[in-house]
Amino acid sequence: MEVLTEENINPAFKRIKYEVRGWLEDRSHEIRQELARGDVKPFSEVVIHFGNPQGMGQPPITFFRQVLALLLCPELLNDPGFPQDAKNRAKRILNDMVGHTISSYTSTQGINVVRQDIAHFISQRDGYPAVYEDILLTNGGSEAIEVMMGVVQTGTQDGRGRAGVMIPVPGYGMYKSRLLQHNSYQILYRLDEEKNWALNVTELKRALEEARPHCVPRGLVLINPGNPTGQVLTYENIQEVIKFCAREKLVLFADEVYQDNIHADGAQFYSCKKVLRDLEAEYSEFQLISLHSSAKGCAGECGLRGGYMELVGLSDQVKSRIKTYLSARSCPSTIGQVIMGLVCNPPRPDEESYERFSKERTIIQDSYKKKAKLTTEILNSMEGVKCNEVAGAMYAFPRITLSQRAIEEAKVQGIPPDEFYCWQVLEKTGSYLIPGRAFDMNGSGNHFYFRITILPSEDKFIPMFERLKTFHQDL
Amino acid sequence: MEVLTEENINPAFKRIKYEVRGWLEDRSHEIRQELARGDVKPFSEVVIHFGNPQGMGQPPITFFRQVLALLLCPELLNDPGFPQDAKNRAKRILNDMVGHTISSYTSTQGINVVRQDIAHFISQRDGYPAVYEDILLTNGGSEAIEVMMGVVQTGTQDGRGRAGVMIPVPGYGMYKSRLLQHNSYQILYRLDEEKNWALNVTELKRALEEARPHCVPRGLVLINPGNPTGQVLTYENIQEVIKFCAREKLVLFADEVYQDNIHADGAQFYSCKKVLRDLEAEYSEFQLISLHSSAKGCAGECGLRGGYMELVGLSDQVKSRIKTYLSARSCPSTIGQVIMGLVCNPPRPDEESYERFSKERTIIQDSYKKKAKLTTEILNSMEGVKCNEVAGAMYAFPRITLSQRAIEEAKVQGIPPDEFYCWQVLEKTGSYLIPGRAFDMNGSGNHFYFRITILPSEDKFIPMFERLKTFHQDL
Repeated sequence: MEVLTEENINPAFKRIKYEVRGWLEDRSHEIRQELARGDVKPFSEVVIHFGNPQGMGQPPITFFRQVLALLLCPELLNDPGFPQDAKNRAKRILNDMVGHTISSYTSTQGINVVRQDIAHFISQRDGYPAVYEDILLTNGGSEAIEVMMGVVQTGTQDGRGRAGVMIPVPGYGMYKSRLLQHNSYQILYRLDEEKNWALNVTELKRALEEARPHCVPRGLVLINPGNPTGQVLTYENIQEVIKFCAREKLVLFADEVYQDNIHADGAQFYSCKKVLRDLEAEYSEFQLISLHSSAKGCAGECGLRGGYMELVGLSDQVKSRIKTYLSARSCPSTIGQVIMGLVCNPPRPDEESYERFSKERTIIQDSYKKKAKLTTEILNSMEGVKCNEVAGAMYAFPRITLSQRAIEEAKVQGIPPDEFYCWQVLEKTGSYLIPGRAFDMNGSGNHFYFRITILPSEDKFIPMFERLKTFHQDL
Repeated sequence: MEVLTEENINPAFKRIKYEVRGWLEDRSHEIRQELARGDVKPFSEVVIHFGNPQGMGQPPITFFRQVLALLLCPELLNDPGFPQDAKNRAKRILNDMVGHTISSYTSTQGINVVRQDIAHFISQRDGYPAVYEDILLTNGGSEAIEVMMGVVQTGTQDGRGRAGVMIPVPGYGMYKSRLLQHNSYQILYRLDEEKNWALNVTELKRALEEARPHCVPRGLVLINPGNPTGQVLTYENIQEVIKFCAREKLVLFADEVYQDNIHADGAQFYSCKKVLRDLEAEYSEFQLISLHSSAKGCAGECGLRGGYMELVGLSDQVKSRIKTYLSARSCPSTIGQVIMGLVCNPPRPDEESYERFSKERTIIQDSYKKKAKLTTEILNSMEGVKCNEVAGAMYAFPRITLSQRAIEEAKVQGIPPDEFYCWQVLEKTGSYLIPGRAFDMNGSGNHFYFRITILPSEDKFIPMFERLKTFHQDL
């Protein structure tokens, strides 16, 4: 009678892996429940080291939340407690919605005024025009990744016809997950740990040439600032990558969700679009899809699922195909759309809410700066730990040296050493760190990796690191 | 230099079609803009006949929106203007979120208390237990459809290994769209127009047997109440379908998003789960995935993208595969999750907001009843139009007889007659009706179909139908 089974389920469902959300995440939720029911542990709270800023203490930007509340309860438009500029924003959105309600389906691409705000933001950021027709709103950055990794699939899943996409190691597991779904080929290129996790063209070339017999290379994923690595790429490095993609006929997929998270002195974010447009006219047909999200930066609105893609250099036909593909999800969340638009168009200096917004943003940014610096310092002060500077994003990705005893114990438990380490950290300190292997850095010899965020609020930050340091020394 | 082209794009992106959102939708948005800039037309507003209740005038349920506003602006928890029960709901949700904020990522499956509310709702509705572990929250109903049509794909796209899914004709185009994406086989079964669009087991058997040489049949989609057809299935009809699926080893996919939209006297909604559980123990291993949405019913919250799936009779392994597949989108929108939970757990009679909620719901339901009846009557009063009773959902799907002249004119324009009819209706009356072919009912001879909603608000309802009637007579 059983129809759908482990044996006959769609193989794509079996191929997918997303190791950031595996058994350790489940265990961390269990421990939360154990604490809630009164179990005594050497910590009072579980800290899940996802890129989940508000969940770890970052306050929301008041203006953004006000606009959303006004959209959901338009009677608040008469409440003198809400600032006029927030009301104006809400009215402008409602005016663009069918039936003037946030409850309406939008077009597949998203709300027009939101797309216009995003295009304006990109133009201002880069100094080059962006048009709203090339902006597609998505349910978080992850839906953009679904589209990017899907659109280059060739349909021929074997031998030379199979699509290949270059992805960084270490790199955000979502790219791998979607490539596995499509049975596309993962062309893994190594970031240069010795050069602060930069991209190295010689290594790109090596990875590409080794992959050629197995696939048709179609694209390259660049994550800047880096996840899980926290680096900010230089202008020259991005330019080299663009030239490499042009030579090798690859679409460039630019994951720029951390563009507002720049912490190190002297570091600066350059978008791939800007670096591309600075190049000669011969690059005018270069193909680039870049993505941004509301989940990071000073907004940190993860659960609301805002995101957008900008499609650069694609033909009208290809753009139309992507639109039709997305139409099968009707439209992205209107709340997600609005928050993405607000991130790109926060209060302007001449607006009532600017001062409050500006103060809130400064507090968040200053805190990031401080914690990024501290994270690098504390990690490097730990025995057998080496960590590049956290220049941007929300993460450090230290290399750790494990004792032979720890490696043996992991073997006894039947789990890889880095997973064993993170599991023990979770049980003994309450921090869920992500093992390096979730980013394809399995480690070797007695060297392993984990990802830790810089996100815990300042009062919890030092105690968290102290627990980790004590655990690390004991191990 | 062009890398990604119409020729080499992923063929799945080329196969997908979703004809509800095609050029006529684009044209309807254009006409809205033409009206906005002052163009004179024989109507003052474009009415897009999507299942978009609030966009067409249905008011929101105040309590639902209050809870959402409280979640987004927790300082409103101190506002005496908000009722205490709404505040309690908001606090209960926040308490279950990482960091007590609606901004956090949730687990892939969704917020626990929301899943518990939904399981409780199903148990009460059916009189049989439901457990929250089997509830997965989704970004609207459409994400559940993506999973359902995806999970049964076999991976063998040709010949006998290809998966086949039985879908109704006429039927909601999203199912077809996802089957096209996977290159799965569409086993089209005809609803019985003469029997108020019921399912006929002889027809199911015919469709299945004809399809067998082309595919491995894996599932059957049942939409109840019907889209685009507005029927409400009888208990006996659902039971026959369950027995058919059991005999033929098919997973039953139950699209029950219109379960709260029952208008005709004597009509009653029976869930597939209930009818299944009423059967003997031999059906205990029957596999069923049912879906619900926040977009319909008296909530009508389309843009917020709330939805859930209940997985019935699936093994732990299969459930785990589905969860992992969904983890690649991180988590569904938290706002969508909450609204879906509220739809399943509205104010209870002992709560402060119950009276207001109950009044608002009654007004909406009474209006639906009235408009459903009027729609059936008016359509049947038109020359050459025949329409089954709108017993549930939000739609009528009349059969129209077109004049030879109209058919010829469509031919001259190079578009199918039903599309021509809907285009002319749009240009001349401002209503965007959906041609039958978007639901796989292409018509034949001089008989064609369209879908119209019963959603326009009462003040606009009669004028809309008068414009349509005049147009129809002129044609």
